[in-house]
Amino acid sequence: MKTVTAGILLIGDELLSGRTQDSNLRDIATFLAPLGVQVGEARILADDAELIVDAVRDFSSRFDYVFTTGGIGPTHDDITADCIAAAFDLEISQRQDAVDELLKRYEPDDLNAARLRMARIPDGASLIKNPVSLAPGFQTRNVFTLAGVPQIMRAMLQDIERRIEGGTTIIKRTISVSGKGEGDVAGPLSEIAKIYPHISFGSYPFFKGDGYGLNIVLRGTEDAELGRIEAELSEIISKIS
Amino acid sequence: MKTVTAGILLIGDELLSGRTQDSNLRDIATFLAPLGVQVGEARILADDAELIVDAVRDFSSRFDYVFTTGGIGPTHDDITADCIAAAFDLEISQRQDAVDELLKRYEPDDLNAARLRMARIPDGASLIKNPVSLAPGFQTRNVFTLAGVPQIMRAMLQDIERRIEGGTTIIKRTISVSGKGEGDVAGPLSEIAKIYPHISFGSYPFFKGDGYGLNIVLRGTEDAELGRIEAELSEIISKIS
Repeated sequence: MKTVTAGILLIGDELLSGRTQDSNLRDIATFLAPLGVQVGEARILADDAELIVDAVRDFSSRFDYVFTTGGIGPTHDDITADCIAAAFDLEISQRQDAVDELLKRYEPDDLNAARLRMARIPDGASLIKNPVSLAPGFQTRNVFTLAGVPQIMRAMLQDIERRIEGGTTIIKRTISVSGKGEGDVAGPLSEIAKIYPHISFGSYPFFKGDGYGLNIVLRGTEDAELGRIEAELSEIISKIS
Repeated sequence: MKTVTAGILLIGDELLSGRTQDSNLRDIATFLAPLGVQVGEARILADDAELIVDAVRDFSSRFDYVFTTGGIGPTHDDITADCIAAAFDLEISQRQDAVDELLKRYEPDDLNAARLRMARIPDGASLIKNPVSLAPGFQTRNVFTLAGVPQIMRAMLQDIERRIEGGTTIIKRTISVSGKGEGDVAGPLSEIAKIYPHISFGSYPFFKGDGYGLNIVLRGTEDAELGRIEAELSEIISKIS
């Protein structure tokens, strides 16, 4: 079984102020799961160059792939491209292939200095297509730098799939239990987790208008085996009073 | 102006797998903003003891306050309390005041070994009331350890407000601009940001069914001054073709 991991850096003051609810983490994780890539950690960072540079270096060495979102627009607080360059000691400059992408959207007269900032790309990076607003993302070594706006971020993922060498796909099965709490099943769950150490068992309580319960999620790589354990665990749970 | 900061650690594999969309970061940030506390960084961590211990130590020294959410339930993957104890080299044991809280909800016969795990509290920590499901959170030095389930997490915040010594409250004003992109206003925005270095200027593009635009958010501490800058900037923007 080959484990492939990713780290995600979500960049932007607005994510920390409570102004904006991030959805990019979930979208990237959902995109990566079928490719057999597990997200190992995510950080939400302010628009602070030193913190971003340190985190890019750290994540690039710890994970197979790194995704950054946010901070590649035309305004003064868009500093991600410069931070990526600094993290890898690369030069950064306005690149013609990126300018060409922008010219598909903007008339030359509208391509002002601010918009041309979006064509500044670290040396040696390859562009990632942006079919929505055309300002490209880019890949620097194992780091994918994407837009923060969710619609654009999701569109950019289409140009990334071919660049990912995935791992063993994780399959999951969910047992939904109504009217029982985590405390009711924690004992048996812990026992069965010891018997099958290669299977991950998660339990997620829920409260709904009409009651409570929990979902038990089994994760592994062999569907037939997961099915047998699901049946075994369901039977144990059904006997709990 | 007194700046008070917080770091947030969101703990749980389910947040990284794409299974669960976190909402606790936003809720905590929104709770802290009126108290004059700014969130400086957030991390989303797997149920991995070493990573959690390191992050608690790091955040506890870098921020005035730290919030952790998740991992304090009764199951085998609930390891946050042990990690907090390890981070501060404290003993951890089952505490009677926490057991007493649980006994308000559970009959003694239902208070099994799994549920009693929720009464394990690091030495010297003070309990945080949980009016929803009664299993308490706790405060260890400057670290607040809360439940992961959003309804319970929010309820616990009520018992935290009195423990926070806040800072200068940040006020914001938003200018909403339709039909213009970030690239149209980035130049003037950068100029005005240089004139008022103590004001934070953020720009957040949006796409809606009927068009696009951006919100420009000014943040500062003096409402009258923010009002003057808002008027100045609005006039500049209205003149952009």
